Amino acid sequence: MPARVYVVGAGMTKVGRHFDKGLVELAAEAYDAAVEDAGIEPAGIVVANMMAGSLQGQDSLGALIASSLGLRYRPALHVEAACGSGGAAVYTAYSLVASGLLPSVVVIGVEKMTDYPTAIVTEALAQAADADYEVFYGASFAALNALMMRLYMRRYGVSRDEMSEWPVMMHENALSNPYAQLHKRITRRMVAESQVVADPIRLLDSSPIGDGAAAVILASEEEAVRSKWGATVEVAGVGLAVDTVELSNREALDEVPALGEAARRAYSMAGLGPGDIDVAEIHDAFTITAMLSIEALGFAGKGEAAKQLARGRFHPGDKPTLNPSGGLKARGHPVGATGVYQVAELTMQLRGDYPGLRVEDARNALASNIGGDGSTTTVIILRRR
Amino acid sequence: MPARVYVVGAGMTKVGRHFDKGLVELAAEAYDAAVEDAGIEPAGIVVANMMAGSLQGQDSLGALIASSLGLRYRPALHVEAACGSGGAAVYTAYSLVASGLLPSVVVIGVEKMTDYPTAIVTEALAQAADADYEVFYGASFAALNALMMRLYMRRYGVSRDEMSEWPVMMHENALSNPYAQLHKRITRRMVAESQVVADPIRLLDSSPIGDGAAAVILASEEEAVRSKWGATVEVAGVGLAVDTVELSNREALDEVPALGEAARRAYSMAGLGPGDIDVAEIHDAFTITAMLSIEALGFAGKGEAAKQLARGRFHPGDKPTLNPSGGLKARGHPVGATGVYQVAELTMQLRGDYPGLRVEDARNALASNIGGDGSTTTVIILRRR
Repeated sequence: MPARVYVVGAGMTKVGRHFDKGLVELAAEAYDAAVEDAGIEPAGIVVANMMAGSLQGQDSLGALIASSLGLRYRPALHVEAACGSGGAAVYTAYSLVASGLLPSVVVIGVEKMTDYPTAIVTEALAQAADADYEVFYGASFAALNALMMRLYMRRYGVSRDEMSEWPVMMHENALSNPYAQLHKRITRRMVAESQVVADPIRLLDSSPIGDGAAAVILASEEEAVRSKWGATVEVAGVGLAVDTVELSNREALDEVPALGEAARRAYSMAGLGPGDIDVAEIHDAFTITAMLSIEALGFAGKGEAAKQLARGRFHPGDKPTLNPSGGLKARGHPVGATGVYQVAELTMQLRGDYPGLRVEDARNALASNIGGDGSTTTVIILRRR
Repeated sequence: MPARVYVVGAGMTKVGRHFDKGLVELAAEAYDAAVEDAGIEPAGIVVANMMAGSLQGQDSLGALIASSLGLRYRPALHVEAACGSGGAAVYTAYSLVASGLLPSVVVIGVEKMTDYPTAIVTEALAQAADADYEVFYGASFAALNALMMRLYMRRYGVSRDEMSEWPVMMHENALSNPYAQLHKRITRRMVAESQVVADPIRLLDSSPIGDGAAAVILASEEEAVRSKWGATVEVAGVGLAVDTVELSNREALDEVPALGEAARRAYSMAGLGPGDIDVAEIHDAFTITAMLSIEALGFAGKGEAAKQLARGRFHPGDKPTLNPSGGLKARGHPVGATGVYQVAELTMQLRGDYPGLRVEDARNALASNIGGDGSTTTVIILRRR
């Protein structure tokens, strides 16, 4: 059993179009907030980012961001797993602390997606799919998810209206989140009538494009007790599992089996099950991603997520409450940063100082992050002590 | 003190122009050799790669390569630190095993650089420099290293002929390495008369462009004793330190201070000093990189590396023997894979089964890998038990 690790600080920027800020400025804003929150400076850094190589022409993000933040000569890594980079970076930071190599590590997820033509961003996002067997044949990332959504709706008899409840709830939840990109109430009818992106995926099934950065500081027990919040929020379980990048090699398109495996490991390590989770931030790049995640995490049986959701499950007040932040759909999805936003938000939920929609007296929280169509999946479970 | 970690298997492909192989095929060749060597299958995987995003349009390399190798549903990460990705990935894998998260992890460094126009590859390599403050102004990666070489030679009165001894020794050492890209004896005069790349850097001061993959399997003590080689080669120390990516923010251009810091940490963890090292594989992307590395690692005083080398130090038979593989200069430099090649070669040196130039009865070995002009630096120390 690895040594205990705690989240001792969290910070984030508003997700949006930050025309006046680059990668380094965004990262610095989140970092400064996390250090202020923790009251300690981290010994090392892990940067989560997907697109800087494609969009900013910049590699070596670990060194670049660490040295810009005054963390020169310290250990710094850059972890990439497409839209799942954030969760993978938290997993990595966990091991750096649990191994005893470093007393504390800040994870900074950062992505700069605006200021570029949409076609360029779409092409860069497609690098999450298989270059040789999917993108080469003209598939966009949305098109691949549309295959999954169509199959899911047909196989389980799920209506457009039932699916639409997800984005409606996400926009509702985001209304009070000061860091959310979208602050706008929507209806099921607005979802159904919004522009087709890749049939049956509509614009309002899709997470927006935005810039943002989030930071969390992980620390050993010895270091945590020196921090402002003390050893309050423990990383109780972590799981990471991968699958084929190309969909054609999967056995089924109506499930994300790697996420089920990542969850199994994280639950087992934490000694918890789906029924113990009070609040979760799950990966909803598209509405279908949320449905398949809910089922892989054990919050609903196969084919039942959308139906239960439409009947009121997972809404504020329910256990688990899902995505009080508004999720990728409305908080926003600065791809490489998303998994770090989730952990930052849940840390605040467990401490009781989350500035948006609060889940009262939450004790166990779960973050699930996905790269590609379920090719890299992570589950991080936090527990209030 | 972290738990003990061992290298239990190593494998590599010949570095060269593999027109018939892509990223996955190269990775598989190295992986199969490492698993055969170890006699155990790894529980997780860390992929080191710099350029797949730029050249192959492919992210999520952890998931892609893991699932192609039959490691579906296991944990897989992709770590990027430009030309220092390999060392950073070994550092990461070390922490995954030392933390108790995973009993064993394979690190696969892989890079596919040929099959592309030189201008495209040069542009992709420039992502190791600072996009905003260097590349934007027209600096190539070689041009930045040329500034360092010119200053070093002038400040310490080092002649062209003294510098040239490095590539001459590298080409000599590589002659018996079956995995080396270049098998060709050269002379000091050939170096001095070779084409100017960026004055004073000549073609024969520069590592070649090539494809390749290397793999090492790290394991806990419990797992190591189950492997073919047992708990023979221990990872005695690891150090990672970063510096600013852009040279203009450094205090000096004739040193790589981050590498000195990484070495200090690795030596301290291993309880060893520079005088204890029998054999080292150091990062010689250019001749000047080797000289500054030798000095940062404590094998020579400041400004003395080239002079000592020209007098016969560091050649086969000396302690330490440097780069018996032929180094980046002649073994080749498939950028993201290089740091993994080094650890694979040194593992075989310590076991006594290295197929190239052997350092007899070596007990302590050191690998030093660099990303950019010293922005990400790692030192890995191996010890035969």
